[in-house]
Amino acid sequence: MSLTFSVIKKDSSSAARLGRLVTGHGVVETPAFMPVGTQGSVKGMSPRDLEEIGCQIILANTYHLYLRPGVETIGELGGLHRFIGWERPILTDSGGFQVFSLGALREITEEGVHFQSHLDGSSHLLTPEKVMQIQGTLGSDIAMVLDECIPHPAGREYVSESTERTVRWAERSLAAPRRGDQAVFGIIQGGMYEDLREECARKLTPLPFDGFAVGGLGVGEGEATLHSIGEFTAKLLPDERPRYLMGVGRPEDLIFAARCGYDLFDCVLPTRNARRGTLFTFQGKLSIKRAEFARDPRPVDPSCECYCCRHFSRAYLRHLYMAGEILAAQLHSMHNLHFYHRLMESLRQAILEDRLQELITEFRSQNSEFSRGDDSGY
Amino acid sequence: MSLTFSVIKKDSSSAARLGRLVTGHGVVETPAFMPVGTQGSVKGMSPRDLEEIGCQIILANTYHLYLRPGVETIGELGGLHRFIGWERPILTDSGGFQVFSLGALREITEEGVHFQSHLDGSSHLLTPEKVMQIQGTLGSDIAMVLDECIPHPAGREYVSESTERTVRWAERSLAAPRRGDQAVFGIIQGGMYEDLREECARKLTPLPFDGFAVGGLGVGEGEATLHSIGEFTAKLLPDERPRYLMGVGRPEDLIFAARCGYDLFDCVLPTRNARRGTLFTFQGKLSIKRAEFARDPRPVDPSCECYCCRHFSRAYLRHLYMAGEILAAQLHSMHNLHFYHRLMESLRQAILEDRLQELITEFRSQNSEFSRGDDSGY
Repeated sequence: MSLTFSVIKKDSSSAARLGRLVTGHGVVETPAFMPVGTQGSVKGMSPRDLEEIGCQIILANTYHLYLRPGVETIGELGGLHRFIGWERPILTDSGGFQVFSLGALREITEEGVHFQSHLDGSSHLLTPEKVMQIQGTLGSDIAMVLDECIPHPAGREYVSESTERTVRWAERSLAAPRRGDQAVFGIIQGGMYEDLREECARKLTPLPFDGFAVGGLGVGEGEATLHSIGEFTAKLLPDERPRYLMGVGRPEDLIFAARCGYDLFDCVLPTRNARRGTLFTFQGKLSIKRAEFARDPRPVDPSCECYCCRHFSRAYLRHLYMAGEILAAQLHSMHNLHFYHRLMESLRQAILEDRLQELITEFRSQNSEFSRGDDSGY
Repeated sequence: MSLTFSVIKKDSSSAARLGRLVTGHGVVETPAFMPVGTQGSVKGMSPRDLEEIGCQIILANTYHLYLRPGVETIGELGGLHRFIGWERPILTDSGGFQVFSLGALREITEEGVHFQSHLDGSSHLLTPEKVMQIQGTLGSDIAMVLDECIPHPAGREYVSESTERTVRWAERSLAAPRRGDQAVFGIIQGGMYEDLREECARKLTPLPFDGFAVGGLGVGEGEATLHSIGEFTAKLLPDERPRYLMGVGRPEDLIFAARCGYDLFDCVLPTRNARRGTLFTFQGKLSIKRAEFARDPRPVDPSCECYCCRHFSRAYLRHLYMAGEILAAQLHSMHNLHFYHRLMESLRQAILEDRLQELITEFRSQNSEFSRGDDSGY
């Protein structure tokens, strides 16, 4: 078996669950956040930095690695884990999201997606089969099928046709040859149309995927729609398999989505914000460049135990940021990812102790960001 | 006493010596290399990264810190050690080198140097007294006097006048009020004129400085002159006080200079080269961007025990570098500084065991770079 998933505990106040995902490279306790290592590196973080903050699994982008350094190179060097020096689980995306973001540089046919490299303009074709083959060579623990991440807004007819093609591609992906030690997740699309989400789930969930992802959210639809479609779609997915909400990652969204029963998350937000000087705390976000921090001797978050907060003041971090020092990106990324992992750890612990609602009330009392959006959502 | 220095062992084949510098923030075994933390951060390295590679002391630049974040800020936050989270010794330069590099933006008078900030064009005056005061507030373990780092080439008359002024400034620096726990080093100038170097040393060495630096070398004079003036000047300095060769730092220069009896070194070379993808090994330098490394599974240096060499292949490092990942700068800096510290450790061990000449012969047999320049030098 390439992957086993078990639900350890269900929350009594919501659809949240504590889960355990076992892969060939180790265990992932869920709900879990996956830092994004686009080009085979979580920006600003070494593998040991990731281990230190308790990172259980990372995501890597097939599109970027396929173009550079090339999948044959990674295969020859013993696969992605060995290439990047990361021994814990890896999930690879299908490359679809990046390819579809190329706009004019790509063309979709039934066969797959023709596109031109953003690096050198070279022409490529990604098909569902090829994407499985690439991920097989990378040797990730979890592979994703090729899908179309539909832009927002999109008309019903386009969404319907695209989603049907995504379903056909999913079937082709399962039929493609693949290695026995790699799990494959199907992806539910359907845009912001509940009936199309339902239709997609109805067709995909009977198939022998190891888990299901929900894609096409967090694409500019706004929080209310994100939450309503996210919650609606979660309910369409089988209880006994892991659920992955793709690319959605504000802390408040993670809390909402965990309550919907999602198990896995990824987002560039913590690392991208870090490089831009925006730091997460349970009291809210903090923009380190603000003049008020110039002589502030306190750590970013006095309750935080990350290396950054244990050793450095806001004043020093602001100085590093203003001076353009690499260390700012390193320390900020460390702190933000530590925050995300601590948040997920809190959620898991609360589910275990059946006090998730209590925890969320606590979060909301500390920070109004956690109570934004559709109030009924929490 | 602000600093004690003792010579533990003298080499029988050269003027090299094994020394022990004791400061309020700990011991520095010499010969020692000081990584440069220009703006209060050794680029790409956290304090714990520095500790891990065995870094004993770092250098920070008074000019940069004075302009940003400002010396009052650092003072208010408990001094430089606390501000940057580094508990081991720090040497601060006087700011002179940076100010004199400003060219048209500065004017020298007997009083000091008037200059305009490279950051915002604001006007400033650095005097010998002010520079001591600034370094007092920073609280470094070793402060440097304000001097003029004379550009090369320079006519004899200019060098003579400038050096005489440097001597007067050195006397003013000693007369200025200063904290009791901070050592002060005088700086020998004199350009490429042996008699002016001699004159400068004759005037400064009787003064109660805690150590002496040799400045104005490594400014484009070429290896032969660097080595001959460096060696000549070292002999003018008292045996019982530490000798610091400022800003000179190719590995072959460090070996040469250690044999001349220098104890301390600093240079941006290992970190700057790291960011540009040039990596040091005992077999010679390696430019990681070369195509030959694209599928090279070996570490940068198989004999190196740094974090980078223990975990990552040349192929991965090349990929990180080509992809512009921050991690490239981090890992490369770690490796290069580890190389420098290992080199210094080897020199110290060889002096202790009286086999320095043997070690250098070994280096030269591994790497022709170590035998460049004036052959008699080694």
